[in-house]
Amino acid sequence: MPRISLSSMWGRIADGGRALFNMPESRPPAELAAMLCDRLISTRGEASGTALARAVVELYGHLDDTARLAFLQHLATHYGPDKVAIDKAADAFHETGAFDDYLTLARAMEAPRRELLGRMNMAPGGTAALVQMRRHVLNLMRKGTGLQPLEHDLATLLATWFNRGFLQIERMDWRSSAAILEKLIEYEAVHEIDGWPDLRRRLADDRRCYAFFHPALPDEPLIFVEVALVRGLADSIRPLIDVPSNGGAGDADTAIFYSISNCQDGLRGISFGNFLIKQVVFELQADLPQLTTFATLSPIPGFRAWLARLIRTGSPAILQPAERERLKAASGRAVGKGYFLRLLESDAWHEDGPLKEAVRAPLMRLCAVYLSGSAGGKGVTDPVARFHLGNGARIERLNWWGDPTAKGIAQSFGLMVNYLYDPARIEAQHEAFVRDGKPAMSAVVKSLAEGGTLARRLRLIGA
Amino acid sequence: MPRISLSSMWGRIADGGRALFNMPESRPPAELAAMLCDRLISTRGEASGTALARAVVELYGHLDDTARLAFLQHLATHYGPDKVAIDKAADAFHETGAFDDYLTLARAMEAPRRELLGRMNMAPGGTAALVQMRRHVLNLMRKGTGLQPLEHDLATLLATWFNRGFLQIERMDWRSSAAILEKLIEYEAVHEIDGWPDLRRRLADDRRCYAFFHPALPDEPLIFVEVALVRGLADSIRPLIDVPSNGGAGDADTAIFYSISNCQDGLRGISFGNFLIKQVVFELQADLPQLTTFATLSPIPGFRAWLARLIRTGSPAILQPAERERLKAASGRAVGKGYFLRLLESDAWHEDGPLKEAVRAPLMRLCAVYLSGSAGGKGVTDPVARFHLGNGARIERLNWWGDPTAKGIAQSFGLMVNYLYDPARIEAQHEAFVRDGKPAMSAVVKSLAEGGTLARRLRLIGA
Amino acid sequence: MPRISLSSMWGRIADGGRALFNMPESRPPAELAAMLCDRLISTRGEASGTALARAVVELYGHLDDTARLAFLQHLATHYGPDKVAIDKAADAFHETGAFDDYLTLARAMEAPRRELLGRMNMAPGGTAALVQMRRHVLNLMRKGTGLQPLEHDLATLLATWFNRGFLQIERMDWRSSAAILEKLIEYEAVHEIDGWPDLRRRLADDRRCYAFFHPALPDEPLIFVEVALVRGLADSIRPLIDVPSNGGAGDADTAIFYSISNCQDGLRGISFGNFLIKQVVFELQADLPQLTTFATLSPIPGFRAWLARLIRTGSPAILQPAERERLKAASGRAVGKGYFLRLLESDAWHEDGPLKEAVRAPLMRLCAVYLSGSAGGKGVTDPVARFHLGNGARIERLNWWGDPTAKGIAQSFGLMVNYLYDPARIEAQHEAFVRDGKPAMSAVVKSLAEGGTLARRLRLIGA
Amino acid sequence: MPRISLSSMWGRIADGGRALFNMPESRPPAELAAMLCDRLISTRGEASGTALARAVVELYGHLDDTARLAFLQHLATHYGPDKVAIDKAADAFHETGAFDDYLTLARAMEAPRRELLGRMNMAPGGTAALVQMRRHVLNLMRKGTGLQPLEHDLATLLATWFNRGFLQIERMDWRSSAAILEKLIEYEAVHEIDGWPDLRRRLADDRRCYAFFHPALPDEPLIFVEVALVRGLADSIRPLIDVPSNGGAGDADTAIFYSISNCQDGLRGISFGNFLIKQVVFELQADLPQLTTFATLSPIPGFRAWLARLIRTGSPAILQPAERERLKAASGRAVGKGYFLRLLESDAWHEDGPLKEAVRAPLMRLCAVYLSGSAGGKGVTDPVARFHLGNGARIERLNWWGDPTAKGIAQSFGLMVNYLYDPARIEAQHEAFVRDGKPAMSAVVKSLAEGGTLARRLRLIGA
Repeated sequence: MPRISLSSMWGRIADGGRALFNMPESRPPAELAAMLCDRLISTRGEASGTALARAVVELYGHLDDTARLAFLQHLATHYGPDKVAIDKAADAFHETGAFDDYLTLARAMEAPRRELLGRMNMAPGGTAALVQMRRHVLNLMRKGTGLQPLEHDLATLLATWFNRGFLQIERMDWRSSAAILEKLIEYEAVHEIDGWPDLRRRLADDRRCYAFFHPALPDEPLIFVEVALVRGLADSIRPLIDVPSNGGAGDADTAIFYSISNCQDGLRGISFGNFLIKQVVFELQADLPQLTTFATLSPIPGFRAWLARLIRTGSPAILQPAERERLKAASGRAVGKGYFLRLLESDAWHEDGPLKEAVRAPLMRLCAVYLSGSAGGKGVTDPVARFHLGNGARIERLNWWGDPTAKGIAQSFGLMVNYLYDPARIEAQHEAFVRDGKPAMSAVVKSLAEGGTLARRLRLIGA
Repeated sequence: MPRISLSSMWGRIADGGRALFNMPESRPPAELAAMLCDRLISTRGEASGTALARAVVELYGHLDDTARLAFLQHLATHYGPDKVAIDKAADAFHETGAFDDYLTLARAMEAPRRELLGRMNMAPGGTAALVQMRRHVLNLMRKGTGLQPLEHDLATLLATWFNRGFLQIERMDWRSSAAILEKLIEYEAVHEIDGWPDLRRRLADDRRCYAFFHPALPDEPLIFVEVALVRGLADSIRPLIDVPSNGGAGDADTAIFYSISNCQDGLRGISFGNFLIKQVVFELQADLPQLTTFATLSPIPGFRAWLARLIRTGSPAILQPAERERLKAASGRAVGKGYFLRLLESDAWHEDGPLKEAVRAPLMRLCAVYLSGSAGGKGVTDPVARFHLGNGARIERLNWWGDPTAKGIAQSFGLMVNYLYDPARIEAQHEAFVRDGKPAMSAVVKSLAEGGTLARRLRLIGA
Repeated sequence: MPRISLSSMWGRIADGGRALFNMPESRPPAELAAMLCDRLISTRGEASGTALARAVVELYGHLDDTARLAFLQHLATHYGPDKVAIDKAADAFHETGAFDDYLTLARAMEAPRRELLGRMNMAPGGTAALVQMRRHVLNLMRKGTGLQPLEHDLATLLATWFNRGFLQIERMDWRSSAAILEKLIEYEAVHEIDGWPDLRRRLADDRRCYAFFHPALPDEPLIFVEVALVRGLADSIRPLIDVPSNGGAGDADTAIFYSISNCQDGLRGISFGNFLIKQVVFELQADLPQLTTFATLSPIPGFRAWLARLIRTGSPAILQPAERERLKAASGRAVGKGYFLRLLESDAWHEDGPLKEAVRAPLMRLCAVYLSGSAGGKGVTDPVARFHLGNGARIERLNWWGDPTAKGIAQSFGLMVNYLYDPARIEAQHEAFVRDGKPAMSAVVKSLAEGGTLARRLRLIGA
Repeated sequence: MPRISLSSMWGRIADGGRALFNMPESRPPAELAAMLCDRLISTRGEASGTALARAVVELYGHLDDTARLAFLQHLATHYGPDKVAIDKAADAFHETGAFDDYLTLARAMEAPRRELLGRMNMAPGGTAALVQMRRHVLNLMRKGTGLQPLEHDLATLLATWFNRGFLQIERMDWRSSAAILEKLIEYEAVHEIDGWPDLRRRLADDRRCYAFFHPALPDEPLIFVEVALVRGLADSIRPLIDVPSNGGAGDADTAIFYSISNCQDGLRGISFGNFLIKQVVFELQADLPQLTTFATLSPIPGFRAWLARLIRTGSPAILQPAERERLKAASGRAVGKGYFLRLLESDAWHEDGPLKEAVRAPLMRLCAVYLSGSAGGKGVTDPVARFHLGNGARIERLNWWGDPTAKGIAQSFGLMVNYLYDPARIEAQHEAFVRDGKPAMSAVVKSLAEGGTLARRLRLIGA
């Protein structure tokens, strides 16, 4: 959007709108937008619906924060259903249980607002405007602005419109439109893309990038996943991102999903990720039959915070005796839980070779405990783990020092994890996880998580 | 779809389905489809939703009539909302009027069936299958088959999905895909297209054809309109259809919409026509600035039946004295209402020059009365007139002998009518028609409709 | 092209041309076209080259036969090279042999006509116009019209432009543009396509159709090949053409090329067919890995004429003794060569079961002799055989009664032949055929061709 | 192209080539490439031409400098025409002048090399490889490497293939492919593009960028022009490049062509620029009817060097009396020609306000003299001026301090010039310039160029 003063744009649109729809001259923008909405939802709106919708959408795009809130509150407080009609219809349905009475009740329940939002969608760019409107609404709702009724209708409508069946998967590469590629730079949420040269490397011949698009948002990826084609399970993120391309996917046997990013805040809660990963596995199998393994290389965002809480809340024996001995030898100090906590909170542990080696075993073990959800009664709490396990993946391998960046250390002491997508087991593992909350794990991770006595003890104390 | 025996196809799919989803071997197709639906709507369905949806959709496409009805009844009677939950939530909402209680009630009202249909949409071709399913349901509903709940959910879902904002207008011409062009031949509902050479003529340089498409049905026009570019208002349909192209749109000042056809029975009740006509006016204005007039050349499907009823029910003086005199002179007989009726019901009147001339004036006049809705208390009853007047068009001109085909004579004694779309007046005319039911008419048609005393008298007796 | 009187079109263009380029008013079209060409090739033409080229091309498209010949003769007799300059440059080159003198000679040799034709190509549709011009020239040259110099330049230019490297292979199917598909109906040269339903069958799921396109002629296939996907080597043409699709290419192991048609007479002598067949083999291998055999089912256009000549010119013993005996038994008559010839020239032989059976063996044998080119000193003379053998194919199998249509009987007594394209042998077979004229043959055909003593004797007498 | 060691790539290709074409194992790459060429041009090459061409092209792409020169010299010294045959044919043609003998001579003249290059074009990427080959040849020719015969055939072939009629104009914008957009950054020759954000600004709504493409090089622009849409004739380059977009082309009445860059060194001498500018004028007129003026804002690359030479070679009275007086006043010094030269060669003149003002008038006047070619007998010598005047533009206005960058000052003391493209005058101006070498000039520039007596005197002395 070019830079232009609001007032001049406002003048331009409002004049157009005024001329076109005989609007009064002196009203503030939010009020005018509300009047256009009244008109759009009325009978007269049918004849010039598209033009009215266009005026509302353009006007909305130029409201300042105050005017926008006022307009959204207008939408949230008007155009609601009629409680009297609902009560009456509910009584009738209660009596008869007849389908006709159900229908009457259903119609009474449906807010005219939904029809209004549907008509706004007729404008060019209408869908994009509604997605943006929901982003605004979600942001404003935290402040208790009474926008729930509007959020409910927007969420319902968008969830219906963005049904998986309408999404199109597209491979992005260096031949894609710059207008779309810059969105990847903007939206990458896991491992930041540092400008166009970095982007280009992520689209090289030994990489893949797939996104979902909706036909009404042709330039806007909804979600995208970045894939590295490598030999064997990747254990470290830097080589996937930093190292120049080795010249193609010729020898690769493994696809590593190393980043998945949602792009549209306005579609929060409408889930695409699980479909995308499975679809990409399918596309890659067809395209590169030599691939045998599909796995992620994922961060463990909640591990460090969990561990700190665990130590602080006084869990008696975080370290197993052998672990404590080794740490004592490396540090030359007595190892109490206060020391362990302080050590981990400083950077000392990873700047000193022997110390780092000494904390490796307990951190790996504790991380397996954390991911497996076996400690504490809440089951798996790591959000990334929940996402992949819920998709039917399994925890395959922990990778020590897989992400040695400040962010990686701050989240998980530099640990990363591979989740394995085995097409043959996805459904069974998904079902087990949904039913019992029990995550699928490789033998190695399982034995790590159950190693020693701590796991059992932690389970007892509900840490 | 290639010809293939149902049983072998059934075997193929069912085996796939069985293998894939561990289904029992010996169930009949409809039952198997129902089991797949149960699975699709369950938690397990999330992991392999697309594959399950695909199996349901393919299976549905191969059910025979009996199995299909059984399956549809399964859909209609299962997956409904829980009345107890509705009643409870309605009570709470009745008490509090709180938005949270409204939400609870809304969730209770929503049939799980809608989620199920949404998941079926994930299959390749899922949207097309659901449109076809609604076509089946609408056909079967006439027979009292208890499918209303399914129809309600299908209709609601499809109306949301086929929001005008998602439709794409496309010009069809001889360079369009044969797969799409054959649909025009198949779906043309007003003036039949007689094979490919006839189609080609309708797509010549002095013609236009526009259609709406939905991204999920890329090969299926939803509705299309055929336009002839001519000089002056067209008064007769044959030249538009029969005469070879005169070589381009160069001299044309008028666009005549001579045929508009809905293509998808499964989208009945979801209106596109008004949007399409206005959009086409817009496209033509941009493309051919020399065009000054946009009008239809339309049939008058209900005129003859209306007139016969009018005469039969004994309206005293259908013919005005001068008209009766002229008819008497041409026929050499006394003109009572029985004779007039018999004359019109035979083909004699249009096979005899003087007789034809004598009935011309009264038929033109009565047709204007009919279209204007000024006779009788029901307002405008002609369905084509209601469509165009509701869009904001006006009745511009009646055309004697505009459609001399058997069909044209059977519907309206060969009369046709032009409805004029004047962009500057569309909204006001639409509003007036919606508010008062008063159609916009040109001065000529108005004077025809109000000519003589009959119109007034008819109004009095409510014919 | 819409029907329009030449004079009015002429008026339209000529006026434009006159206004634009200050042309005299009263010249006949051919003369005006010549004047435009003079201008186009002059210095002034550089500034408005595209507009001038457009005027020439449009004008050319509307010349009648007489004017066109006059214009083409103008092109052929003007714009030639300068003999004096050539002679002088040739002398210098003769003396020195220096490359600079070669260059001077080369420039002197190049007719300005070629530059003129190159400038005509700048018009929209210029390439198509030049292809059409060459078609005209080739037709007119038979009549001794002195167009050789023009034909030489056109042929050279078009051969350079239509270099294989610029051609794009495209699969045609029912989703292709109607404007292109109608060209298939128009150009099919081997087995006529009887309208759109017939065409649709040839584009069904168990068929393939590929064509070469040039970017400058986007709607004009240059050559196309029709392929049937079947099980085993096809032995008869009717099932490939008549039988409705069996539902896909699922079980096929063999691709039968049953028709290959050049589309552009104006590109005569520029060979595409060999590239197309090999490219299609490649595309099919990639697309349908289950295919193991690639072969044609081809007509034998010269067989019958060759055999009649052979018998007439008195070859002593066309029939082998056993063949003669069997024929005698079937016919109840003495079998002299006159009788054999008369028999084959009537339809009697194939309307009588035993007779037909009796001529089968000798016709198969003689056809193998014919195709192999082993009789007579001219080598292989059948044009279709020469084409496929020159491409590196081999004669795989003769098919009795493969084409029982009137055309098939008239050409080759209903026989057809399969040429096999074995990717592994194409090059070696091509080389052997080019070097020695020796066709590759399967063992069966070879033994047929060499069966008995006739082949040897025919070789001796040079029949 | 991914980074890969030459030797491994070489191994890969050579092995393939060896296996495929039975090549000896131990030859160096250039020799192998030569052998493949021998094979490609031979009869055997016909069967596997595309595969052979591919091998040659891939091999060529991996030759190092030495091997490449060796291979190019092989191409240049082999595959030439047969002098004996040429001499013989030339004699015959000399005698008879018959067209058949002309044809024989023409065939003798044509080097087999041209057929060889044509066959190389069949490889995927063949055209790109030949364009690159010509770039190599042009670079190497300066060193006297005997490549002229190869250059001649390459140049002839490429000029024919890149006929204007095959070029496609395309608008480039931010939705274009990144693979193409990065070429703009790479190839911009006039005003360097400083990375992606700078590029994005040049593709904003108030800018246009058009390029010619050839269908065989889909990702490679041949030439592109950058246009700014502004109000009034632009007089300074920085605002066109630096200033952020003002939000669209809404108010613009003038299109300024501020940069035109050839992209392909291998197509040197094949002129596209004149076509491109005229085509872009045409596209802009259709797209933005409000535009009334089409002009460049161009550098004057030869002005400063010309003026220095002029002063040095002793032209008596470069400055007019009034100019000298003003300069004397500003500098406080006597103004001889030595001083004037030293002043201009230092930066002093433009760092001091009054001095700068004092040199303005003489520099403007002298620049007009320079551009008009009226001084000296050589006519217009500035290459940019020759290009635009040859296209039919006129010198419209000189812009003082239009390009205050170091480069602008070094070339032309910061002056820039507008060339005006007036569609109605292009042809006449082009013709006059080609015929007489007389440039079209606006009245203002004309009067500047002819101002005072200097111009006349300069003309007399032939400076």
